[in-house]
Amino acid sequence: MIEITLPDGSVKEFPENSTPMDVARSISEGLARNVISASFNGTTVETATPLTTDGNLVLYTWNDDAGKKAFWHSSAHVLAQALEELYPGVKLTIGPAIDNGFYYDVDLGDKTISDKDFPDIEKKMLEIARGKYDYNMRSVTKAEALDYYKKQGNEYKVELIENLEDGTITFCDHSTFSDLCRGGHIPNTGIIKAVKLLNTAGAYWRGDENNKQLTRIYGISFPKQKDLTEYLHLLEEAKKRDHRKLGKELELFTFSQKVGQGLPLWLPKGAALRERLENFLKKAQKKAGYEQVVSPHIGQKELYVTSGHYAKYGEDSFQPIHTPHEGEEFLLKPMNCPHHCEIYNARPWSYKELPKRYAEFGTVYRYEQSGELHGLTRVRGFTQDDAHIFCTPDQLDDEFKSVIDLVLYVFGSLGFENFTAQVSLRDPENPEKYIGSDENWEKAENAILNAAKEKGLNYVIETGEAAFYGPKLDFMVKDALGRSWQLGTIQVDYNLPERFDLSYKGSDNELHRPVMIHRAPFGSIERFVAILLEHTAGNFPLWLMPEQAILLSISEKYEKYAEKVLSLLENYEIRALVDHRNETIGKKIREAEMKKIPYMLIVGENEEKEGTISVRKHGEGDIGTITVDAFAKIVENEINRTLKQF
Amino acid sequence: MIEITLPDGSVKEFPENSTPMDVARSISEGLARNVISASFNGTTVETATPLTTDGNLVLYTWNDDAGKKAFWHSSAHVLAQALEELYPGVKLTIGPAIDNGFYYDVDLGDKTISDKDFPDIEKKMLEIARGKYDYNMRSVTKAEALDYYKKQGNEYKVELIENLEDGTITFCDHSTFSDLCRGGHIPNTGIIKAVKLLNTAGAYWRGDENNKQLTRIYGISFPKQKDLTEYLHLLEEAKKRDHRKLGKELELFTFSQKVGQGLPLWLPKGAALRERLENFLKKAQKKAGYEQVVSPHIGQKELYVTSGHYAKYGEDSFQPIHTPHEGEEFLLKPMNCPHHCEIYNARPWSYKELPKRYAEFGTVYRYEQSGELHGLTRVRGFTQDDAHIFCTPDQLDDEFKSVIDLVLYVFGSLGFENFTAQVSLRDPENPEKYIGSDENWEKAENAILNAAKEKGLNYVIETGEAAFYGPKLDFMVKDALGRSWQLGTIQVDYNLPERFDLSYKGSDNELHRPVMIHRAPFGSIERFVAILLEHTAGNFPLWLMPEQAILLSISEKYEKYAEKVLSLLENYEIRALVDHRNETIGKKIREAEMKKIPYMLIVGENEEKEGTISVRKHGEGDIGTITVDAFAKIVENEINRTLKQF
Repeated sequence: MIEITLPDGSVKEFPENSTPMDVARSISEGLARNVISASFNGTTVETATPLTTDGNLVLYTWNDDAGKKAFWHSSAHVLAQALEELYPGVKLTIGPAIDNGFYYDVDLGDKTISDKDFPDIEKKMLEIARGKYDYNMRSVTKAEALDYYKKQGNEYKVELIENLEDGTITFCDHSTFSDLCRGGHIPNTGIIKAVKLLNTAGAYWRGDENNKQLTRIYGISFPKQKDLTEYLHLLEEAKKRDHRKLGKELELFTFSQKVGQGLPLWLPKGAALRERLENFLKKAQKKAGYEQVVSPHIGQKELYVTSGHYAKYGEDSFQPIHTPHEGEEFLLKPMNCPHHCEIYNARPWSYKELPKRYAEFGTVYRYEQSGELHGLTRVRGFTQDDAHIFCTPDQLDDEFKSVIDLVLYVFGSLGFENFTAQVSLRDPENPEKYIGSDENWEKAENAILNAAKEKGLNYVIETGEAAFYGPKLDFMVKDALGRSWQLGTIQVDYNLPERFDLSYKGSDNELHRPVMIHRAPFGSIERFVAILLEHTAGNFPLWLMPEQAILLSISEKYEKYAEKVLSLLENYEIRALVDHRNETIGKKIREAEMKKIPYMLIVGENEEKEGTISVRKHGEGDIGTITVDAFAKIVENEINRTLKQF
Repeated sequence: MIEITLPDGSVKEFPENSTPMDVARSISEGLARNVISASFNGTTVETATPLTTDGNLVLYTWNDDAGKKAFWHSSAHVLAQALEELYPGVKLTIGPAIDNGFYYDVDLGDKTISDKDFPDIEKKMLEIARGKYDYNMRSVTKAEALDYYKKQGNEYKVELIENLEDGTITFCDHSTFSDLCRGGHIPNTGIIKAVKLLNTAGAYWRGDENNKQLTRIYGISFPKQKDLTEYLHLLEEAKKRDHRKLGKELELFTFSQKVGQGLPLWLPKGAALRERLENFLKKAQKKAGYEQVVSPHIGQKELYVTSGHYAKYGEDSFQPIHTPHEGEEFLLKPMNCPHHCEIYNARPWSYKELPKRYAEFGTVYRYEQSGELHGLTRVRGFTQDDAHIFCTPDQLDDEFKSVIDLVLYVFGSLGFENFTAQVSLRDPENPEKYIGSDENWEKAENAILNAAKEKGLNYVIETGEAAFYGPKLDFMVKDALGRSWQLGTIQVDYNLPERFDLSYKGSDNELHRPVMIHRAPFGSIERFVAILLEHTAGNFPLWLMPEQAILLSISEKYEKYAEKVLSLLENYEIRALVDHRNETIGKKIREAEMKKIPYMLIVGENEEKEGTISVRKHGEGDIGTITVDAFAKIVENEINRTLKQF
C-alpha cells in the first residue's frame, strides 16, 4: 500500500500501482469524469501513470491551468497526426501548449499550408479525436529513438534526441501516431470536442535565424463546442477592442517611424485623457499625504551603479549617453526610485517627519526589441504613476493599508471590479537569498498579510516569490473579456535605503534606516490606458470621457441655440462639442455613435421654443426631451455613481 | 567742409578735422559736457578724433551702452597705470570693458594681489583720475611697438603685436602711461569719479589652460559716487536674492552630484510651484485654443537629421544613445518642434481645421560644459512651455497678435511690468541668406510689425537679426534690480514645414505649406522660476505662493481652534499650514517671516473666544484681528489684483 496526500491535506491509502485516475474514482465518479491531468510530487504525470511511492497528488480538470495545458498539448499531438496523414513526408519538430492553445512547428518541404487548408485539417483532427484513442507513454532507448527518426529522415527530432540522455527518453503513442514527448496528456483523444486552427507563421528552427524557417500552425481546442464558440466570440470582440485600433479611431495617440518605434505621441484627446487620469490620482494622493516631486529623465551612470540597476540591466538597456567634453556618462532613467532616494537624501530627517511620500508621474525609458513592441502595452518609453514612501519599520503596517485603499479606489473608479491579489513572501528555507534583518522581514510580511486580510482582499500567498529586497503584493485584474492583467504593485524595499545610505534620527537620537515602499496603482499610464480601452471598448466612465456630450443641430437655423446650450454646459463643467455641419441628423447621430460620445443632444425647432434638448445615450437611444439643468443632473449622478469617494 | 549726418537724420556742415566733441558743442554745451564716446560710420572713434570725410556720427553719453563701454575701458587703463606704479615689473596683457565694469589680466611675477590690496589700488586710481589726463591715441610702427615691449620684457604684448599688421597699430597715452590699444576712450580721466575693485580670479593667458595663469582683477567705475553706492547696494541685494540661495531656503529645488550637474531635482514645494505656473498657463492656453500634446524625451537621430538640428548641434550635444541590438540611434530631445511636426503629420488637414496649436510642457536636454552651469539659469535639462502653431499664411497676423496677448498676460500676472521688445527682420541686402518666398517673408514681417504696433509694444527693429528660417519677436524684461532678462520669444518658421513636408488642403483643393510659429512665454520653467525668485526675492504674487498663510498658535491650548481655522481656510482654497510647536510666538513669527509666508495668523485666547484671527502681513506687520471670512476676502482681493484677466 502507498500513502497519497491530497491538496486539502487528507491522506489516503491505495494499493501500489494505483493511478491518479484510480484516486479520482475513489473520491467521486464525477471527479473521475472531469480529471484530465495530474501532478505527483510536483512532477506532471499521466492520469494512467501507476504510482509506486507515497506522495502528494494533485488532480486537474479543465478549470485548472495545468488541465488546459495537458488538453492543448494533447491536441498538438492530434494536429501532428492529422498533418502526417494529410501531408505525407511532413517533418514534425516541436509542438507545445501555450497560454491560449497550442502550436506545432513543421517542415513541409515544398508544400505550404494556409488558412484555406484549415477546415480540412480540423476535420481530420476531429475524426481522430472521435476515435477516443488513449495516450500511452512508452520509454525508449536513445538508439531506438534515433533509429525511428533517422528512418523518417527527420533531422530535427534527431537533433533533439542527440541532446537528451539515454534512459530519459519517452514517446507518446495514440492511434497510429507516435511522438517524442515528455508526457502530460489527457486520458484519451475523445475528450477533445472542438478544434480551431487560428493562423500560420514562419518560425526559425530553434529560434535561430540562421536555421531553416519552419511553418508554425497555431490552434486551440476545447472540451465543448460551446466553449469554442464563446472563445471565437471573445477573439472577435478583442479584435474590435484592440487598443491600437480604438486609439486611432478615438484620436488618442499615434506612432511615428521618424520619432521611433515604441515611443507614443499623445494626440490632444489622448493627452487630455492622460491629464484627467493624472489629476484624478493626484487629488487622491494629495488627500493621502503624498507630495509631488519632479526629477530629470537622465542620471549619471554612477547613480544606477549605486542603485544596482546598472549591474542588473545595463547591458541590455539603452546604452550610456556620452558628453562631447568632460567624459561624463548618463543613462536614460529606467526607474524613478534612485532619483527619489536622492531627493530624500537632500536633507536630514527626524522620525517625527516620516513618512515622506514622494510621488511623480515619471517617464522612464527601457529598451525592448522591436519585435516585442505592441501598441501601448509594450513600449520603450512610458510614464509611471510612481511613488516612494520612506517610513519607519513601525509605520509599515499603516502605510501598506493606505496604499491598498488607494489602489482599490483607483480600480473602483475605473470600473475594474474583478480582481485578485498575490502576496509574494520569501522562501524561509533560503534566508541567505534575501537582504534585510529577519525581524524586518517578519514585520514587513506581517504588515502585508494583515493589510490584505483587513482590507478583505481575495489573495493567494506565493512563498519564495518575494524580490531579494522585500516582499510584495500584486493585483491581477480581469477585464470585460475575462483576460487577466497585472495592474498595480506594492513592494517593500530594504535594499535601496541601504545602497543610498538613507537615514532618519529616531526617538533614541540615533540614526536608523527607513523602509521604502514602491507603488504604482496604474503601473504605467500607457499600459493602463491600453487595458482600459480594451476593457471598456472606449466607453470610459463618464468622468473620464474626452467628450461627454455632443450638440447636434437639426439645421443651420438652430446653431445659435446650440451655442447657447453649449455655454450652459460649460458652466456645469460638462465637456461638450457641437456638430453644426450641413448634414442630416441621422448621419450626425451615426458618427457621434461611432466616436462613442456618451450623450447626443439634439436641438431643433421644438427644443429651441421650449428651451430643452433631446437626449440620446450612446448605445441606448433616445432618453427624452429635457432641460439643460435636468441633463446636468443626469451627468452629475452618473459621475457620482462611477467616481468613488476617497 | 565735411557733411556730418546725425542719428535723427539731420545733416550739418563742419570744417574738415572737426572732432566729435566739436559737433557736440555745436549742438549744445550740455551735450558736450556729457559726451564721452562716439562712433563714426559704424566705427568707434575718440571724442577728439579729427573727422576728415562726410559720414554718420553717433555721440554717446553714460546712458548709452557704448558710452559705458568706453568709460570702463578707459578705467582699465587707469587700473593698469596704478598697478604699474604700485607693483613695478607687473606685466600687462589685456584689459577690456565687460557688461558690468572691466578687468585687467596681469602677470604679477612672484607677487600676489588680494582684496586686502584693493583700497590702496583704488586710492591710486582715483589719484590718477583726478589728474584729468587726456587720452591720446598715437599710431606706431610694428617695430616701434615691439621694441617698446621687448625692452619691458613683456612677452604677452609682444605676442599680441606679432599677430597685428604694420600700419594698424596704435597706442593710447594718458599721464605717464602708454598701452597698446585700438581706441574708444572717454575724453579724460577726470570723468572717472568713483572706482571699486570687485574681486580677483585666475585666468590663463589667451584662455588656454596650457599657458601661464595670470591674475584677473575685476573692477567697476562710475561718473558719480552716488552711482557706485547704488550699484554696490544692488550687488548686495542681488546676493540676497540669488535664486540658488532662495531655492534652498524655500525648499524649492536641489541638485545631486550623483544624479548629475545641471539636472535640478524639484522638491515638493518647488514641484507644486511649477505645477501652479503650468496650470496658470494651461488655463490661458485652453482659452486661446491651444491643445496639449505629450511627446517622448528621445527621438531617432534621423528625426533631428530631418529637422536640421543634428547638423547644427549634433557634435556639441549629448551624444547618441545606442541600442544593445538592432543598431538604432536615439538622441535626447533638444527641442520639441520635430515631435510636434510629426504629430501634425499624423493625418491630413484642411485649411478649415487650421490653425492647430500644439502645446507641451516639454522637457528637453542640452549639453552645457560644467563650468557654464549656474543654478536654474543654465542647466542641462529644462522644461519649455512650448507650443507650435501651424497656420495658413493668412492667419499669421491674428495668431501673432494673440500670442502677444498671451505673453503680456503672463508678464502682467507675474509682476513683470517693465519690458521692451525686439523685432528681428531679415537683411534685405542679402535675400539669399533666408529660406521661404519673398511674399511670405513680407507677410510675416508685416504681421509681426503690425502686431507689435497694434499691441502698443515698446519695440526696436533689428534688421538682419532674423533667423534664416523666419523673423521673430523677443521680449526683454527688466527685473526689480534693473537687470535685463530675455523672456518670451515668438518666432515664425518656414523651414521645418518644408523639411517635414507639412501640408494642408487649401480652398483651391491643392496642397499648401502651413507656416509655423514657435513660442514660449516663460522660455523655460527653470530659468523663469530663477528670474522670478530674483525679481520678487521669493515674495511671489499671492496666487503663486507655496504657502499663502501660516497659523501660529500662542500655546498648545489653541491647537484645536487653529485646526478649525485651517479647515475653514481649506474651504476657501487658501493654502495654509500650522505651527503648533512649543515655541514662543515671537520665534514662530520670525521663522515665518524668514520663510516669506505672506500672512501669519495668530490664534490665542481672545481669538478663540471671538472666533477671529490676528493677521500679520509679511514684511509689513500687524493688520488687525478679523474673522476668517474677512481674511478670505483680503486674500481674494489681493489675488484678483495680481492675477490678470485673460
